[in-house]
Amino acid sequence: MQLRELYYPRGVAVCGSVSPGKLGAVLIGRLAEGGFPHIFAVNPKAQGKQDIKGYSRIQDIPATVDMIVVASPAPTVASILEDAGQKGVKAAVIISSGFGEAGHPELEVEMKAVAQRYGIRYIGPNCAGMVNTHHNLLATLEAAPATGQVALISQSGAVGGMIMSRSRQEGLGIGKFVSYGNGSDLSEIELLLSLKDDAQTKVIAMYLENVRRGREFMQALAAVTRVKPVIIVKSGRTGSGQRAALSHTGSLAGADAVYNAAFATAGAIRAESIDDLFDLCQGFTFFPPMQGRKVAIITNSGGPGVMAADRCEEVGLSLTEPSGVLLDQLKSFLPAHAGLANPLDLTVEGNDIQYGKATAAALKEYDAAIVIYIGTSYLRALPVAIQTAQTAIIAGKPTACCFEIGLDIEEAHAYLREQGLPLFASGERAARVFSQMALYHNYLAHPCASIDLPQPQKLAFTSLTEPQAMQLLAAHGIKTPSFYFVKGEQETLAACMELGFPVAIKIVSPDILHKSDVGGVKLNIIDEEGARAAYRELARIGRDVDFRGVIIYPMLSKGREVIMGFTRDPQFGPVIAFGLGGIYTEVLKDICLGLAPLNKEAALKLIQSIKSFPLLAGVRKEAPADLESLANMLAQFSELPFIYPQLAEADLNPVFVYEQGVMVADARLIVGC
Amino acid sequence: MQLRELYYPRGVAVCGSVSPGKLGAVLIGRLAEGGFPHIFAVNPKAQGKQDIKGYSRIQDIPATVDMIVVASPAPTVASILEDAGQKGVKAAVIISSGFGEAGHPELEVEMKAVAQRYGIRYIGPNCAGMVNTHHNLLATLEAAPATGQVALISQSGAVGGMIMSRSRQEGLGIGKFVSYGNGSDLSEIELLLSLKDDAQTKVIAMYLENVRRGREFMQALAAVTRVKPVIIVKSGRTGSGQRAALSHTGSLAGADAVYNAAFATAGAIRAESIDDLFDLCQGFTFFPPMQGRKVAIITNSGGPGVMAADRCEEVGLSLTEPSGVLLDQLKSFLPAHAGLANPLDLTVEGNDIQYGKATAAALKEYDAAIVIYIGTSYLRALPVAIQTAQTAIIAGKPTACCFEIGLDIEEAHAYLREQGLPLFASGERAARVFSQMALYHNYLAHPCASIDLPQPQKLAFTSLTEPQAMQLLAAHGIKTPSFYFVKGEQETLAACMELGFPVAIKIVSPDILHKSDVGGVKLNIIDEEGARAAYRELARIGRDVDFRGVIIYPMLSKGREVIMGFTRDPQFGPVIAFGLGGIYTEVLKDICLGLAPLNKEAALKLIQSIKSFPLLAGVRKEAPADLESLANMLAQFSELPFIYPQLAEADLNPVFVYEQGVMVADARLIVGC
Repeated sequence: MQLRELYYPRGVAVCGSVSPGKLGAVLIGRLAEGGFPHIFAVNPKAQGKQDIKGYSRIQDIPATVDMIVVASPAPTVASILEDAGQKGVKAAVIISSGFGEAGHPELEVEMKAVAQRYGIRYIGPNCAGMVNTHHNLLATLEAAPATGQVALISQSGAVGGMIMSRSRQEGLGIGKFVSYGNGSDLSEIELLLSLKDDAQTKVIAMYLENVRRGREFMQALAAVTRVKPVIIVKSGRTGSGQRAALSHTGSLAGADAVYNAAFATAGAIRAESIDDLFDLCQGFTFFPPMQGRKVAIITNSGGPGVMAADRCEEVGLSLTEPSGVLLDQLKSFLPAHAGLANPLDLTVEGNDIQYGKATAAALKEYDAAIVIYIGTSYLRALPVAIQTAQTAIIAGKPTACCFEIGLDIEEAHAYLREQGLPLFASGERAARVFSQMALYHNYLAHPCASIDLPQPQKLAFTSLTEPQAMQLLAAHGIKTPSFYFVKGEQETLAACMELGFPVAIKIVSPDILHKSDVGGVKLNIIDEEGARAAYRELARIGRDVDFRGVIIYPMLSKGREVIMGFTRDPQFGPVIAFGLGGIYTEVLKDICLGLAPLNKEAALKLIQSIKSFPLLAGVRKEAPADLESLANMLAQFSELPFIYPQLAEADLNPVFVYEQGVMVADARLIVGC
Repeated sequence: MQLRELYYPRGVAVCGSVSPGKLGAVLIGRLAEGGFPHIFAVNPKAQGKQDIKGYSRIQDIPATVDMIVVASPAPTVASILEDAGQKGVKAAVIISSGFGEAGHPELEVEMKAVAQRYGIRYIGPNCAGMVNTHHNLLATLEAAPATGQVALISQSGAVGGMIMSRSRQEGLGIGKFVSYGNGSDLSEIELLLSLKDDAQTKVIAMYLENVRRGREFMQALAAVTRVKPVIIVKSGRTGSGQRAALSHTGSLAGADAVYNAAFATAGAIRAESIDDLFDLCQGFTFFPPMQGRKVAIITNSGGPGVMAADRCEEVGLSLTEPSGVLLDQLKSFLPAHAGLANPLDLTVEGNDIQYGKATAAALKEYDAAIVIYIGTSYLRALPVAIQTAQTAIIAGKPTACCFEIGLDIEEAHAYLREQGLPLFASGERAARVFSQMALYHNYLAHPCASIDLPQPQKLAFTSLTEPQAMQLLAAHGIKTPSFYFVKGEQETLAACMELGFPVAIKIVSPDILHKSDVGGVKLNIIDEEGARAAYRELARIGRDVDFRGVIIYPMLSKGREVIMGFTRDPQFGPVIAFGLGGIYTEVLKDICLGLAPLNKEAALKLIQSIKSFPLLAGVRKEAPADLESLANMLAQFSELPFIYPQLAEADLNPVFVYEQGVMVADARLIVGC
């Protein structure tokens, strides 16, 4: 998807009143101010504005019009699109509001039908427009950004405007901006894909509050992140949306955790705030790739160096000490009292040449450098900036400049920006950027594998009892214990004989979901007498419900307990939860989510990501649990929601993991889609 | 401690060369630039500079000199102090370096002796000087700050300079700045106390990398935080300093966790970064106290409102929905499509009057408000700023202004600052400030109680075996099991008879620290035969070591396992660690620290602060553990390091907590101080 007419229209018509103060007038003003050459005004009175000629209908315009920008009242938009279609227009920016968001979805349906008939793609309605600074195109009410290599897709016009208005002072150029408002035609998915192969876009930044078709979005994301980084601010992290959490673990995982899993799976980088978005865009736009995690800090002042070092460690960068070879080299030219460590402290005695030489030497050994300069009365900022920039360019490794104060600091900042070196407000913020760049570099080496979805099968039941659930799991290669499902005392005794004591006997009734709570589980039954008593007791409990019988298992030896479950997120579909059983999930909330399906590698990664993983790997000389079999089971389990679209959710709880092998000990599959 | 001559000197002499480019010349320039009226130059050639007269000795100055600023070479400083003492100088700012930090501690000792002889208090050496903008005093090489009500104490001159140079643009005024470099006389403690009753200081900001006398610092902090807030950036959070962690839990707690515990105990607020320091200083300087946690967000744009709401929830603020009464009121004057919830979204249709009325109405129901304005073409920022400020002033509740973009945004910012309303770069950052203000307000209601330290006692041993440790614990009211400590098979049998089977028998030897590892613990011994075999086996293990005998306990019923320990932090002294036993501490690192001694209330708070606390409180219908007894034991235990200064560290691991009562099941006390 290229959306060429949206980004590079040959002519643009603004549809709406151009009377002073009206949106149409403001939009024409913005387009003219941006220097776009082929603007036309369309309104019933055929009014123009300054040099811009006015027409009463689009068809009357005696020139090519690829795009219209619409700011007229909602009820008029469909007929404007009709006119536009006849004129051959292929793109529309619908600024007008008063549609679905204001209780008039019918106007949106009507508009969309017309657009589809003519093959017009549009953003909006109720959006803040778009910008292409490479085409002098300002089809928006928002502030014009500095031009550059970042494309910004924003669900919120205001946030987009805020980012664009800050872009100049932050030194971050924005090539394209698109807001999509109600998104009734083009939404985050199409817009993301439209920028994948755009040569003028190096980094894609997004502001999202939610996505509508999560799976499709993820696929688009995964396709794009292989080509260029996508950095996302996703708000709405808390509060609502908790319904999407997993069945058993309802209170543990909000929808936001699903977004995190989705972004991570698809290789997108999640920014923590708008400030962080700026920092990350700077880094990804201007730095060469970060090929490892070894960072050198070069400073002339202890305090800021320490603060940067703290953050480096916290975000998982490696601050290894300089090698002997490097130390010898540094000693040969640095001041006598320089702190020869990492951070490397040139002290107030350090000069510009030493900054350059030290950075060059360090970059031979490290993957990146953070250069901190604090103005002193002895050393101006500009010469340090020059030495640092020249060194960084030759070294071809990420070099973050944190030039914090100094008399000529503005000059130094300007010089660094000219040289394409981004500035960071502090070493801490540079550290965060490096950590995310390293993560992305690592992702590119192992991008998410696309997994073929299994064929759906028909499920012949409208609910599943425990025996049915166990049978279904077994049919898909998930290890379950042998069992008997019987009704009657004699049948129970016979089954116990077949299995051999000790056994566990549980009630089977579609009316009883939590068997233990009603005394419906009898464990460790060692003889006939016990079996008889157990059956009688269960039958008694079953008196007032739909009692189908009992399920009898051999007693399993206890392994380490894990749980696995899936539920369906309204946006992203099947989500897998994994954790250690019991208190680990309930009290410590140590559960991790992954988007189904998982291949074996992804399943293992999910298993390893829980905090209590060492308990599976083995602590205190304990043998490790059979992670191989566990990962296989989790991968197989993760296909079930695709095989049986009727399953709403499932819980295997507990699953016993042994030193050899795994075994489901209880299962609950809920039909309901 | 007032340090009047340091902050408000009547005359200042600069000691050091005033030749161009020399520090003395720069310092005189800074003092003159600041407008300080009584400056004198002192140097061997008696050179002056412009209007400033030069003298060869301080004694020659024919006027009162309360303070000297010294920038001459290190070896000359002691004799300068000698001269100053004779002149009656009482304060000195020693900028000169070349002392302890450069391998010449003897020069520092000599200087200090002279100063003490004359009662001169000094900052430095090797410091960046000081500033008192209320006294036109710029005795520093760093940038002059905007004046105001914040006092800044910085261990790093560069960080202090960075903060001062940003103060103007951040709209934060700094009244006093003191850096203390090597801190050989005045250090963080004295400086902190000197500002406690300073009427011109409303908030104290500190940048620290470490403190030297942790306990004294904490006491000073607790004394000051009762009067005014203290906000601290503490760097050096990671890496080194891990030695200070607790014995059993060596890898779990770095020294930084001790700082956190100390700050929290003493009511100080820890800033996460310099940006955060600015935000917090703004809030505490300009806002009235935050009396609760209910915050209303008032915005004209969804996106920024959502982002602010996310952060509010994350930092523990309460975003309750508006009451029916408030809703009715809001409906009566807000635009038809306004989002009547929290965040309250006025939409682009909202105007300045509505901003004011909505904020006023909300502040009747909420404890604070975050007002977000995003510039539109319909509504200018200044009128909104005026309405918001007037409302906030009348309401007398914290009202954070986040005015992000707009054509007249600079005017609005200037107006808000004039009215004493701080600005925040985003609603998220305001939320963080509110949360910390609420925390501080809460602290003031329950400030840390000063606990009388118990009297030290002599410990008659140079090491403690398990029986000795148990006896000592019991002597201090800590519940231990009854036991026998015997040597010999017959004696063992007799002891078993007294206690009654089943028993546990453990080896006692000062050479064996980890008894289980060598098979030195025999549990569940049910009869004479077992006891005999156990003794023989333990005696065999004891053959090659200093075998003192065996300790015999009745088998304890297993309760919930917790551990408590103490160690001595090099800065802060006795630190208590508490956690659930076994994997909770080892794998999940769920352990919390508190500074000893703890009263019962503080002990309970520490117990409640671990993540796995629900396991003690009781999950799944389990009865709660006896928290009362546990808190009592922990409080008593926390006195031991003071009673026995010879104890280096201690571990009670495990302690069993029952539904009724607690019991130490194993103990290790290490003598070594």
